[in-house]
Amino acid sequence: MKAKVYVTLKPSVLDPQGKAIKHSVQLLGFDSVSDIRQGKYFEIAMNGSVTEETARDEATRLAHDVLSNPIIEDFRVEIEE
Amino acid sequence: MKAKVYVTLKPSVLDPQGKAIKHSVQLLGFDSVSDIRQGKYFEIAMNGSVTEETARDEATRLAHDVLSNPIIEDFRVEIEE
Repeated sequence: MKAKVYVTLKPSVLDPQGKAIKHSVQLLGFDSVSDIRQGKYFEIAMNGSVTEETARDEATRLAHDVLSNPIIEDFRVEIEE
Repeated sequence: MKAKVYVTLKPSVLDPQGKAIKHSVQLLGFDSVSDIRQGKYFEIAMNGSVTEETARDEATRLAHDVLSNPIIEDFRVEIEE
């Protein structure tokens, strides 16, 4: 069982790193890009014995408590076989 | 149109950051976690006028040339309306 956690800055939070990437990318001639925001991505391998429900609970708790800062970040959890 | 780019280390490349997270997480009692690998995640907003095909081409070129290091990293591109 595998969990994927995506952590992104909340829309109201400034993302200077994304802004810097966007600026460079536009200088390089990628004209159709209007905005870039950077986030984090985690692939979590779970022991084979856990059920999908346990995996989702555990991954959500992990994302909330450890992998993200809930004050400035949102997260999303996906479970895969 | 929105593109999402996921950048992960190739499986053969060591991920010390992921190892450190895994170690901390196991000390905190998340027993079902057997491995964690960290990657990067980018949300790219495209100008409204581009077609899905152009958006995919542009995002793939961007991911290959700028957002990832093809020697040690893999990437995946998703396009969303």
